[in-house]
Amino acid sequence: MRMAEAGDAVMGRLIARYGPVDAMEQARRGVLDPGFARDEKDRAEASRRHLDLGRHAAAWAARYTDPAGDLAQGMRRGARLVVPGDVEWPTQLDDLGDGRPFGLWADGQANLRFSCLRSVSVVGARAATAYGTTVAAEFAMSLGGRGWTVISGGAYGIDGAAHRGALASGTPTVVVLACGTDTCYPSAHEDLFHAVRQQGVVISEWPPGAHPTRLRFLIRNRVIAALSRGTVVVQAAARSGALNTATHAWSLNRQLMAVPGPITTDVSAGCHVLIRQGKAVCVTSAEEIIELVGSIGDDLAPEQRGPVQPRDGLNDETRRVLEAIPARGATGPAVIAVAAGVDIGTALACLGALAAAGFVENVDRGWRLRPAARR
Amino acid sequence: MRMAEAGDAVMGRLIARYGPVDAMEQARRGVLDPGFARDEKDRAEASRRHLDLGRHAAAWAARYTDPAGDLAQGMRRGARLVVPGDVEWPTQLDDLGDGRPFGLWADGQANLRFSCLRSVSVVGARAATAYGTTVAAEFAMSLGGRGWTVISGGAYGIDGAAHRGALASGTPTVVVLACGTDTCYPSAHEDLFHAVRQQGVVISEWPPGAHPTRLRFLIRNRVIAALSRGTVVVQAAARSGALNTATHAWSLNRQLMAVPGPITTDVSAGCHVLIRQGKAVCVTSAEEIIELVGSIGDDLAPEQRGPVQPRDGLNDETRRVLEAIPARGATGPAVIAVAAGVDIGTALACLGALAAAGFVENVDRGWRLRPAARR
Repeated sequence: MRMAEAGDAVMGRLIARYGPVDAMEQARRGVLDPGFARDEKDRAEASRRHLDLGRHAAAWAARYTDPAGDLAQGMRRGARLVVPGDVEWPTQLDDLGDGRPFGLWADGQANLRFSCLRSVSVVGARAATAYGTTVAAEFAMSLGGRGWTVISGGAYGIDGAAHRGALASGTPTVVVLACGTDTCYPSAHEDLFHAVRQQGVVISEWPPGAHPTRLRFLIRNRVIAALSRGTVVVQAAARSGALNTATHAWSLNRQLMAVPGPITTDVSAGCHVLIRQGKAVCVTSAEEIIELVGSIGDDLAPEQRGPVQPRDGLNDETRRVLEAIPARGATGPAVIAVAAGVDIGTALACLGALAAAGFVENVDRGWRLRPAARR
Repeated sequence: MRMAEAGDAVMGRLIARYGPVDAMEQARRGVLDPGFARDEKDRAEASRRHLDLGRHAAAWAARYTDPAGDLAQGMRRGARLVVPGDVEWPTQLDDLGDGRPFGLWADGQANLRFSCLRSVSVVGARAATAYGTTVAAEFAMSLGGRGWTVISGGAYGIDGAAHRGALASGTPTVVVLACGTDTCYPSAHEDLFHAVRQQGVVISEWPPGAHPTRLRFLIRNRVIAALSRGTVVVQAAARSGALNTATHAWSLNRQLMAVPGPITTDVSAGCHVLIRQGKAVCVTSAEEIIELVGSIGDDLAPEQRGPVQPRDGLNDETRRVLEAIPARGATGPAVIAVAAGVDIGTALACLGALAAAGFVENVDRGWRLRPAARR
């Protein structure tokens, strides 16, 4: 089914190369000719697929009523067809094996191959919350600012926010559609797709004029996962299309990442499941994403840590004296000395130093913490 | 330092048993007498600690000016002293080794040992958000409703919300203080602690009258971690006291859990660090907590899954027909048949069934999805 659907785009090109009669035969032999098999097992597998493919052949033929027309129409509408072997072909799609698209229609200024060399897919629910779209846009902007291309599906919610964030950073972004590159779905994203064509590229496996179907969204998702070095799921309910993309990324051994969110909304539940299953790494910043998808050693994220506190600079004895002072109320130096385990002279010296540094103050009933130094 | 602090409580009891002169010697030998060593390595280690302890002896002696008075005062104020060997002693504290408290002052109706047999520590930031306190209270209420005791530190924020949730469920809850059980810190929690005494128990290593210090909070945290089968960090900034409790739970091989939250607030950052480091399991419901701390097989959480959708019940052919219908607009049955890879008769039969089930409708331009069936 997947292979049959994926074949749409290449048929026009094959016809241009081989003529209409041999086109389908070439398409089949190019991937599946049993003569290419290396051993007996390979041969059996190839034969089996050959038969499987035969079942789809009639359906294929019914669809390609006018492949040459498709190709001409695509060109007229500004889309170029990129196939394996072209300089613009992103070779990481070869990881899809037999599921590799036969070709991609591309419409936009950016070079598809170069744009995707350092790229991250940012995906998520269409019914996203403000939290989700904010995070998606900020991640995309930071990724773009560090030279990373953002890939997504151009849908409402997380996808759209990610593309917009990437555009704001001035770097290319790649929209992978489940319909022809000339079809604007959703239609409210016409301006967005127009901007992406200027700065990035809009791609699709399906020829111009093709409409989106539920199945095509699912087929499309494997390309989003395979094009990038890793996929970030920003928000996804327990049964979201974004989890389908996540599954592809995971099975392709791409980095899979998920953004945590409030457990009180359904729309992060899918992210939490991925994290709980150990499939996705919990990420909270663009730096953490780049550390995972970047080169080992070159793209390390700064370690998450709290602010350095003034008391970190104290020596051991002085810190013990400070910690021996009750959280509220004032205490005499003798009691403090005992609690800190130091003699009274040391305690007084330390208290003086602490007062000078603004940690404590001397009141009529003894020494007490100043508000800023309280735990 | 920790051992010196932890000794406060037991001194009064030891004096009552052995008389004032031998009390300290007994305390020291009870844990550290080199005569108990099993081999040469043990003996060397015991001797070293013996010397370490000697350094603290003078500070100890200075503090216990009136241990017998402490004991009498504690009893007068309603607190009982529980020491190892008593029937009320929670033996899981033995996992602390040398760091085990010498005794615990307890004030409340509930039996400490029984209350802690099935217990979870719920801890977190004092500067919690409404999201954090809501989650803490709901978790505690659900845990209580399933017969689990909630242990926490009685502080503002997460701690207080957890105790309140547990009280609402009608089960005992345990407050572990860093000051005497008669000292109300924070003072705004006087009503809360009063309610806990009626339904649960308030405990402390320090004798009645002791004030909280920064160090005592840190010492106290190991008891919170050791008393329960697992610790849940609901909210914690990157440098929160709750992370200290988490570290104790982790090094004691107790289950460590953390609740995810928005990455846009600082107060969940510590939770995310624990999850990223693989130290804490990401938990999103009380069921998931109980699965981790409960008996294997008996306390499984229901698997997180999305709602069952009507289309799950369709057979393969009908689903393919449904998925072949464009996401918007209407299409003729011939186009649908080709896209689904079925013949026209099958397509029409499936479309009829789908219309009867409410997935599609027939309009003048063909068949289209009804709004509820759109992807």
